[in-house]
Amino acid sequence: MTAGGLPMAVPVEGLPARVRIHEVGARDGLQNEKATVPTEVKAEFIRRLAAAGLTTIEATSFVHPRWVPQLADAEDLFPMVGDLPVDLPVLVPNERGLDRALALGARRVAVFASATESFAKANLNRTVDEALAMFEPVVSRAKAEGGHVRGYLSMCFGDPWEGPVPVPQVVRVCRALRDMGCDELSLGDTIGVATPGHVRALLTALDAEGIPVEALGVHFHDTYGQALANTLAALQHGVTTVDASAGGLGGCPYAKSATGNLATEDLVWMLRGLGIDTGVDLGLLTATSVWMAEQLGRPSPSRTVRALSHKEQ
Amino acid sequence: MTAGGLPMAVPVEGLPARVRIHEVGARDGLQNEKATVPTEVKAEFIRRLAAAGLTTIEATSFVHPRWVPQLADAEDLFPMVGDLPVDLPVLVPNERGLDRALALGARRVAVFASATESFAKANLNRTVDEALAMFEPVVSRAKAEGGHVRGYLSMCFGDPWEGPVPVPQVVRVCRALRDMGCDELSLGDTIGVATPGHVRALLTALDAEGIPVEALGVHFHDTYGQALANTLAALQHGVTTVDASAGGLGGCPYAKSATGNLATEDLVWMLRGLGIDTGVDLGLLTATSVWMAEQLGRPSPSRTVRALSHKEQ
Repeated sequence: MTAGGLPMAVPVEGLPARVRIHEVGARDGLQNEKATVPTEVKAEFIRRLAAAGLTTIEATSFVHPRWVPQLADAEDLFPMVGDLPVDLPVLVPNERGLDRALALGARRVAVFASATESFAKANLNRTVDEALAMFEPVVSRAKAEGGHVRGYLSMCFGDPWEGPVPVPQVVRVCRALRDMGCDELSLGDTIGVATPGHVRALLTALDAEGIPVEALGVHFHDTYGQALANTLAALQHGVTTVDASAGGLGGCPYAKSATGNLATEDLVWMLRGLGIDTGVDLGLLTATSVWMAEQLGRPSPSRTVRALSHKEQ
Repeated sequence: MTAGGLPMAVPVEGLPARVRIHEVGARDGLQNEKATVPTEVKAEFIRRLAAAGLTTIEATSFVHPRWVPQLADAEDLFPMVGDLPVDLPVLVPNERGLDRALALGARRVAVFASATESFAKANLNRTVDEALAMFEPVVSRAKAEGGHVRGYLSMCFGDPWEGPVPVPQVVRVCRALRDMGCDELSLGDTIGVATPGHVRALLTALDAEGIPVEALGVHFHDTYGQALANTLAALQHGVTTVDASAGGLGGCPYAKSATGNLATEDLVWMLRGLGIDTGVDLGLLTATSVWMAEQLGRPSPSRTVRALSHKEQ
């Protein structure tokens, strides 16, 4: 299962030489699965992702099992993959989650904020500012332990209840997350409605706010097929961290569509064509997604996975 | 079935104010269908596309029925839609096809050339130059009748037998098609392997050859999910004609994948977000694709069609 000599690599001046992919399939991808995925399968998935060359693999979430039962095995899973030579960030929703993560030796953690009041209420049962107040001690304690903190920010472009989200509203929450100590922000288009001009407008506003582009990642959903075009716009602005999910696993339960996260394979195809180094072996990654799709009993929504795996038949 | 206030329109400096969509669903989309689509359904499809605001709708092909039996009803179909206030180009593979088209009053025609020897052989049973020689009298006679001629050029980026296609090889055939009188060229990524840098490289080489960007259209396939990112790169280069297929219908039988043409809806979503005028009503277009999918008995592969139609349920 290889892509042969295709795509041809034709670099474009002004784009980054290297992109770091923040792989979210094992956490964001699996958290909404209806079926329970055995812990050993999750561990094997993470091992295969690492073997395919991914270097940042979000492993799980230390959320209360009542809210995300699919990831209730975090304590069992994390030690099974902890010795892999890759970064394994974990989501921590609050101080209790941080305690659990720190106890296992995790030092790369992520919090999950919202740019809109409606989603903060739906997802966290708090206002935006109440959620930020909850994250404050999480971030400061993680930093005090020598950790690295990523701040996810969801609904950065549109919200299913509120419609288009004003750029200044997003910038304000980014500022707050940076001020409390987040090393990195992940700008989420949770319902997939962003287009390239909107992406550019937000990144330009964050420049003006003095938030360095090196501290930004982008997290696009492919609900309307826009994720790669938006990624291109972000690369043209200097972004070098891109979130993606192997095989296109997962998505947002509030975005009523069959498709969710940008598929890592579709991203790697474009980056390979642009001559941008990711360190990822596309054949091994595609094989991993085909294997995971078999575990889940349904095909990958990734166009690249479908095209490359079809060639083998 | 509407997109509500989304996406938010955020224009980008340097992009065109208006894009003309060359809708290929009725011809390119339906020609590979296994099921026979009744002529009245095709006519209704074209009428609905026009009502949704599309102004260039490729109607059918005057190819020999032995090769494309799905379009054997061209003589019946064309007069049924001929009075619509839109451009209705038709494909003509040779002089016999041109005779049939001219007899019905068609004056916008298209020929279908190949950038590679392998595809010329597979599709036309000729060398590239033999095919060009066959088109020469077709183009000159159409022009003598006051017609407008589009030259499709397939396999502009990669070929399933030959791999990546060198840019100069594509430029040579573009030059030949222009020299014989083609008003417009459509640059086809028939197997969907192009990436934005490759698109830019071909467009830059065509600039250097003196072929005006106004005479170029782009025709991307979404086999690897790259079509919209490639379209963005083409818009950034000044291209204002983009081929797409309502609902993502059709594709190339030589590209072994479930997905083919860029879906018109996914394109319109991006253009609307970029504040680029297309004249298309996205709600009406999506409803048309949902209706056509019902006629064909299978769902649209367009992500936008799926997302918008799901919202209605």
